[in-house]
Amino acid sequence: MDYKEEIGKILRDKKWKISTAESCTGGLLSSKLTDISGSSEYITLNLITYSNEAKQRMLNVTLNQDGAVSEYCACQMAKGLYELTHSEICVSTTGIAGPTGGTLQKPVGLMYASIFSKDRQETFKIQTKSNLSRTEIKEIFANEVLKKVYIFLKEVEGKY
Amino acid sequence: MDYKEEIGKILRDKKWKISTAESCTGGLLSSKLTDISGSSEYITLNLITYSNEAKQRMLNVTLNQDGAVSEYCACQMAKGLYELTHSEICVSTTGIAGPTGGTLQKPVGLMYASIFSKDRQETFKIQTKSNLSRTEIKEIFANEVLKKVYIFLKEVEGKY
Repeated sequence: MDYKEEIGKILRDKKWKISTAESCTGGLLSSKLTDISGSSEYITLNLITYSNEAKQRMLNVTLNQDGAVSEYCACQMAKGLYELTHSEICVSTTGIAGPTGGTLQKPVGLMYASIFSKDRQETFKIQTKSNLSRTEIKEIFANEVLKKVYIFLKEVEGKY
Repeated sequence: MDYKEEIGKILRDKKWKISTAESCTGGLLSSKLTDISGSSEYITLNLITYSNEAKQRMLNVTLNQDGAVSEYCACQMAKGLYELTHSEICVSTTGIAGPTGGTLQKPVGLMYASIFSKDRQETFKIQTKSNLSRTEIKEIFANEVLKKVYIFLKEVEGKY
């Protein structure tokens, strides 16, 4: 299934917007969403908040002891994105695409992502194999998020 | 030559930052730049300002009669991005990736892009064949911009 296409169909049908705030995926998620013709109907503004400073400044993220690669940060990013854009669906990613930057606690291939809507927020953790290339890891991260957004949309579309 | 890698080398060497504000490329330019390991050293914040409203709100773009796909708009986007981020190199894209949205005056495959630094701004126009797919056109757009950014950097790196 082409998740980005299915996401587009639901968003168009519901007249909803989607926004993304990406860290580890670096724009790949936004690029995939905009591969769909007509996506300008439901995409207005996406961000790549790569630095901690950008996360704080644009999304009002306050980092805690868990750092930028954490469930807490992913949650805050998606929520801050909603405050900024008021898009019905706001999606964040934060993780370690490697090949450097990994630690024992947070290895390369770890990502947290969060999907925020007014009445519901879901945050999930992905861990890929850590011997993959940076571009392979970004690709897996972005595709996993698209799948999760699709599932999220299928669950909420009937309710509103 | 892998332009994104060469761009990374120059930026790291000069301790410069780069920011992007994309319309037609939809995040692909940012994604390519962040494919380079260590790119978080020189990338802090990138935007995808897909709607006119986002261009106005985030980048202070005032559209004129030429519309969003124009040299004027590309210039304003890159300049507005500099005001927002103060990155040494600010890059914008605006165009028509198709397959719909083209006109006689502005066919599918037309893009304007602009590179802004404090002392210099260059804006250029690309026209691809218009029978290519949306993803093919995005790919050409992003790669052309990377090449132009590399040339721009080679020209200015010796001066500062």
